[in-house]
Amino acid sequence: MADTFPRVLDVELLGLEFEAGLQRCRFPMVPGVARHDGTLYGGTAIAASVAAMEAATGRPTLWTTTQYVATAQQGDVVECTTDVLASGRNISQAQVIGRLGPQVLFVSLGSTALARKDGIEGQFQSMPAMSQPEESEPMVLGAPGGFRGFLSQVEYREARALESESHAPPLAMWVRLTSGHPFSRAGVAFVADMVPGAIARSVGMVGGGTSLDNSLRFGPITGDDEWVLLDLRAHMAAGAHAHGSVFVWSRHGHLLAVGGQSANMTHMVSLEDIRAGAAD
Amino acid sequence: MADTFPRVLDVELLGLEFEAGLQRCRFPMVPGVARHDGTLYGGTAIAASVAAMEAATGRPTLWTTTQYVATAQQGDVVECTTDVLASGRNISQAQVIGRLGPQVLFVSLGSTALARKDGIEGQFQSMPAMSQPEESEPMVLGAPGGFRGFLSQVEYREARALESESHAPPLAMWVRLTSGHPFSRAGVAFVADMVPGAIARSVGMVGGGTSLDNSLRFGPITGDDEWVLLDLRAHMAAGAHAHGSVFVWSRHGHLLAVGGQSANMTHMVSLEDIRAGAAD
Repeated sequence: MADTFPRVLDVELLGLEFEAGLQRCRFPMVPGVARHDGTLYGGTAIAASVAAMEAATGRPTLWTTTQYVATAQQGDVVECTTDVLASGRNISQAQVIGRLGPQVLFVSLGSTALARKDGIEGQFQSMPAMSQPEESEPMVLGAPGGFRGFLSQVEYREARALESESHAPPLAMWVRLTSGHPFSRAGVAFVADMVPGAIARSVGMVGGGTSLDNSLRFGPITGDDEWVLLDLRAHMAAGAHAHGSVFVWSRHGHLLAVGGQSANMTHMVSLEDIRAGAAD
Repeated sequence: MADTFPRVLDVELLGLEFEAGLQRCRFPMVPGVARHDGTLYGGTAIAASVAAMEAATGRPTLWTTTQYVATAQQGDVVECTTDVLASGRNISQAQVIGRLGPQVLFVSLGSTALARKDGIEGQFQSMPAMSQPEESEPMVLGAPGGFRGFLSQVEYREARALESESHAPPLAMWVRLTSGHPFSRAGVAFVADMVPGAIARSVGMVGGGTSLDNSLRFGPITGDDEWVLLDLRAHMAAGAHAHGSVFVWSRHGHLLAVGGQSANMTHMVSLEDIRAGAAD
């Protein structure tokens, strides 16, 4: 059966309202799509872009890159416009711009694609051996009792490496939507904006930074996964700017997506500072 | 000493002509910027985008994603326009559009950035142990005696894994510019559009496919490297669409760039077909 776009669950997760023709949509800045400080969460911007290009082209997203340019506040309404730059038999190329009035908030490029019969199939890497979600500890993100933002829609648990492998990730998290709904591509995009945390871990800090962009490439997503594993990797950092990757795995070891992010790492704190603060 | 943009070597490599103000540039479609069939080479599009956003902002590129929409032919002149969407104390956000007349050929997003003093620094992975360029065999790319295109400006050698490590790449190549000039960010972008070849290797085929995009994230590039190693990885493929990554290393093991690409893998041939063809 062919997929129908936009997906109802994506529309609900992000609060999207589509116009007829599906080239334009909007969403209000409510707590569930915001960062801890009430501003636009990067994962919302890329997830809305995924849903918008799927709706405009009628095809599932193959890859997308979202550039974060400016932000929005609680009560604002973000308008998204999709341009289809090219559309072939199997692949469409699209651009989504998110705006607040005349101000560009984010720009996304990407392709949506139908699978070709008899095309190549394969997975060329395997999931690291990690604790299952049921045996993983809840992660406390954000300030306890404070404004939750998008964290009200997501549950994160920290996965432990089961073998002391040299290629275990510095940070791995099981994630589910608190609605209990399975993950779509937009759902994965909503939760995967977490590379800065892995970069912070790699230098013995906590917290993160400001993502400059997020690039995600999707494999087959069946819509059966309630939990996904974010396997986060840091590559390098110079002059406060850092790059990292995320691999998104199903519980059964299927690679659902790979992504890259660059970030401005100026919001980290050391564990010593946290302990000193707690002792005050 | 501050860098000056555009870099003279990038202008020469790509044949760029900048207008006053540095917001617009153009390049003619000559063999040295083309694919084997005379059309626009993807590496040219991303390299020109890197040079264009560096010129317009006066800062080195931190990351860029280029979406390939349409192509151009020998004799055409490609026009590039750069819009600076935001510019802060250390980071600028830019968009570059390449056009042939009214037709959009490619769209690039990216940031350029100045290093912050006392910002985090680090490299969180190490280069695989591979043969040095002097001990690596030349790679014959393209048809012998045929139109060379961009290959006239680049020399590739296939690096061998020195240990049978489980994490050796399926394909790794040493690359230099035949001019002998050291690599800039634009130079790295020009040679790194090679992920489809690694995907083909991972399924026992040769050849490649059509890149849909290229995303590159740059670390420090000192301008001292004549040879760089492309460490190419395949992630997964479904319905002929595949995703992979590239790590770009200096000879001394510095991670210069990381990148991701998606491709439409419909131009592969099996080794059996090549042998059968050679026996005809």
